[in-house]
Amino acid sequence: MTLNLVPFVSVERMMQLVLHLGVERVLCDLAAEIEADFRRWPAFDKTPRVASHSDVGVIELMPTSDGETYGFKYVNGHPSNMKKGLQTVTAFGLLADVATGYPLLLSEMTILTALRTAATSAMAAKWLAPAGATSMALIGNGAQAEFQALGFKAVCGITEVRLYDIDPEATAKCVTNLAGSGLRVVACGSPEAAIEGAQIITTVTADKQYATILTDNMVGAGVHINAVGGDCPGKTELHRDILLRSGIFVEYPDQTRIEGEIQQLPADHPVTELWQVIAGQTPGRTDARQITLFDSVGFAIEDFSALRYILAKARQTGHFDNLDMIADPDDPRDLYGMLLRAACRP
Amino acid sequence: MTLNLVPFVSVERMMQLVLHLGVERVLCDLAAEIEADFRRWPAFDKTPRVASHSDVGVIELMPTSDGETYGFKYVNGHPSNMKKGLQTVTAFGLLADVATGYPLLLSEMTILTALRTAATSAMAAKWLAPAGATSMALIGNGAQAEFQALGFKAVCGITEVRLYDIDPEATAKCVTNLAGSGLRVVACGSPEAAIEGAQIITTVTADKQYATILTDNMVGAGVHINAVGGDCPGKTELHRDILLRSGIFVEYPDQTRIEGEIQQLPADHPVTELWQVIAGQTPGRTDARQITLFDSVGFAIEDFSALRYILAKARQTGHFDNLDMIADPDDPRDLYGMLLRAACRP
Repeated sequence: MTLNLVPFVSVERMMQLVLHLGVERVLCDLAAEIEADFRRWPAFDKTPRVASHSDVGVIELMPTSDGETYGFKYVNGHPSNMKKGLQTVTAFGLLADVATGYPLLLSEMTILTALRTAATSAMAAKWLAPAGATSMALIGNGAQAEFQALGFKAVCGITEVRLYDIDPEATAKCVTNLAGSGLRVVACGSPEAAIEGAQIITTVTADKQYATILTDNMVGAGVHINAVGGDCPGKTELHRDILLRSGIFVEYPDQTRIEGEIQQLPADHPVTELWQVIAGQTPGRTDARQITLFDSVGFAIEDFSALRYILAKARQTGHFDNLDMIADPDDPRDLYGMLLRAACRP
Repeated sequence: MTLNLVPFVSVERMMQLVLHLGVERVLCDLAAEIEADFRRWPAFDKTPRVASHSDVGVIELMPTSDGETYGFKYVNGHPSNMKKGLQTVTAFGLLADVATGYPLLLSEMTILTALRTAATSAMAAKWLAPAGATSMALIGNGAQAEFQALGFKAVCGITEVRLYDIDPEATAKCVTNLAGSGLRVVACGSPEAAIEGAQIITTVTADKQYATILTDNMVGAGVHINAVGGDCPGKTELHRDILLRSGIFVEYPDQTRIEGEIQQLPADHPVTELWQVIAGQTPGRTDARQITLFDSVGFAIEDFSALRYILAKARQTGHFDNLDMIADPDDPRDLYGMLLRAACRP
């Protein structure tokens, strides 16, 4: 065993790995992994992410541990990046062995975050959406959109997506990318048109400001709302009145009350933790006319599940490189000697 | 500019870089960089590190930002690793651009942490040790020891180090490695012998438990104590009575009260923040007979200074590689399209 080498999944390797397995299979596998980890929720160390805010964005560290494996993600959110030709969200992550503290995996997570966010949304909808849902409105057609569409197809059996974005070019990109996916793809000229007949409404816009993508009169009885875009202080997508009519499900209340749609509500407004629904401790949707809302902000355990999956698949397929990241002197106390001896090498 | 590539300083590259510049020059440069950043202390976002503790060790994330650049370090502390042939402490770190959230540098930090810890200790002693100090006791002769010795030589003009370790092999390793350094190196058979005539006492042992490396009667008037090894809850090196006789200087009180020697004292015991001494806001050593104690636990700003230094030197010397860590689609909203197009490549 070479102690100094850490398996590294680069962007290129991640694409190879995902294409090798198939996007929909990865989304299904991730949904299953995340669900399994949500079921054992109390086993994890949980802490709200550690955020460093600036005028233009945020940089966050999201750590967790199940006592055997430790994981964290570095992720930024900079809505104005798009205008500069940069990603709004970029990320990478690490797994480490709790027993030794040695890293087990370093991985790109820009692509992986898109996959795990969609897988989490679809997994939540499996528990919360009305029975027999086949049509989803997808409002916001940016970098996350196709992953959401394919996640809901693969995990929930959605057959139609109804697209809307304030920028028609984003919608056109999405239509092109989803051609041949097996989904019926409908480009719509307004949010109202997009939600027509949809049993699931996904909002995944990126403005860092209080926005109102959905107003109260747009949301009918019985729908499931998958609110993905409101994920930091000052950034929301839904009108407050919708929240007051909905059964609200969240990942980790301490974090969601700061970052999610419910930052618009009093701190004691009742919410249900999604893991409790999955663990059978509390009901999910209570009747066919209830509006269910998954107020998704993304939580460290989802990244942990995704990184563990990628480590297993990378090992199986060989889609990784080795990174010389950990100093490994012959005698662990002789770090300086290792440096001295390096000077003598040709 | 290739957006997806992040400069990476591997262990091998770090050794090349340090040997190219020279260890003592790097220690002097780092001490100057750290001192400059301590002088502008209020400019930094500061937070106690985010620690995940287990029975055998700890994994920590240490973030900070000066509003332009963001940095964090991943570091573990596992005292029992040594018996398994592993490093007690391994680390890596990252710098990112606050304006975009994009990483600027990924670097090994096992070697760099040893260098920055020694540089910080020596920088503190420059401000606190008695005038004309030439001899230092060095108790604990593990991975950090030679770096401390060379840091105090380069920054403070120490000419003699007096070594003691409960394991004579560790001392012997240190003697060998420091031969030819220009230091007078004295191997001692007891801590009492080591501190004989020394104006500076450095303790850098690794047990994760309350230990008493120094007892009260061993410490005479006027010495400077550089307490490096006590750096997490339950891990201390000095008898409480020494603390009560000393002027205590710390990096960041919120963190040191949890992790440093002063965890043995009431939470309101007066301490001085080292940066205030450097910024001229408060005196350091007040008289020749005062015992000064630098209760060092390591703080994120020191890693930030070290990473910025390494980034500059890596760029100057070319001692880095490029890592394909950030997804960079032609259209930032078209992350999925990038994946689709990768499938079409040969």
